[in-house]
Amino acid sequence: MCVVTEGSDPGHGRVMRAIRARRNVRAFSEESIDPSVLKEIVDAARHAPSSMNDQRWAFVVVTDPARLSAISKMGTWADHVGRAGAAVALIVPDAEDPSERESIAFDLGQAAQNLMLAAWEKGLGSCHATIEDGAAIRDLLGLPAGWTCDLVISLGYPADRSILSASPRTDGRKPLDEVLRLERW
Amino acid sequence: MCVVTEGSDPGHGRVMRAIRARRNVRAFSEESIDPSVLKEIVDAARHAPSSMNDQRWAFVVVTDPARLSAISKMGTWADHVGRAGAAVALIVPDAEDPSERESIAFDLGQAAQNLMLAAWEKGLGSCHATIEDGAAIRDLLGLPAGWTCDLVISLGYPADRSILSASPRTDGRKPLDEVLRLERW
Repeated sequence: MCVVTEGSDPGHGRVMRAIRARRNVRAFSEESIDPSVLKEIVDAARHAPSSMNDQRWAFVVVTDPARLSAISKMGTWADHVGRAGAAVALIVPDAEDPSERESIAFDLGQAAQNLMLAAWEKGLGSCHATIEDGAAIRDLLGLPAGWTCDLVISLGYPADRSILSASPRTDGRKPLDEVLRLERW
Repeated sequence: MCVVTEGSDPGHGRVMRAIRARRNVRAFSEESIDPSVLKEIVDAARHAPSSMNDQRWAFVVVTDPARLSAISKMGTWADHVGRAGAAVALIVPDAEDPSERESIAFDLGQAAQNLMLAAWEKGLGSCHATIEDGAAIRDLLGLPAGWTCDLVISLGYPADRSILSASPRTDGRKPLDEVLRLERW
């Protein structure tokens, strides 16, 4: 089931290799994604832990090209959604309390990371898109009152498949020594 | 490098298996965790994507038993930290703007999920602990002004190692059909 080839990044387990190798993908091939694969990817998101196991989330999978194109115009940097094979809209319940909103966002981040890692294992690239036109996506997705979508993740087979088996990038992140402290700051 | 045995949850790749099988662990053995393993786990967190690649996070690894015990008293449900082999304090920059705070929380959730999945692959259980006494942990960790810790993740080899190779639980999450919609809500 794993389409990421062996050999890159030796010395690490498969999970760690996926974590290190995954990168955002914004250029996709035109190959469609099997619906069963999309279900599995959302299933990964669903398995994320959440505060008090409240699972304050829902996921709308969009594959219709006209709808993907519409979403791609709802955010400044969302153009990649229009080229994707699918997008998963991340939906959360509204909350007034700022700390509750942060808690919901943290949990959603955990779900999103599961989703993107599972996609990577299936040979799919992914990229976040912030949605700025909340009313437009609410209308497109038919969201009921009390639910909001601020973020979509596009999914697709990378135009350049070689990145799936490439060695992890060594740039693009702060060095470990800069973000890791032992016992005290 | 992978200590999670084969055989459980057939039909899925290793990443998906880890995602489905990982569960919170609050009962740990007394075995200590090699420092190189702790570094690898934080390295996984560091590789998470973040908004504009801003990486608004830092990680303090605590292994000293007296310090772990102190942290275990800083939150209502943090007692497991006192039994853990280590804890990773998740540190974020302060932000006034509520939407920026949500964005930081989302990214931190992505990093936390990477951390917990990498730990699972190394045979380590993990569990979140919300910190309620912000002043106490600030003092313990020596945090500079402008940085906050609201959350710690405990790490340790599970007291019951059999859970590492157990089949994924089928309870504990809302059914897929309840959280997944196609094209529209």
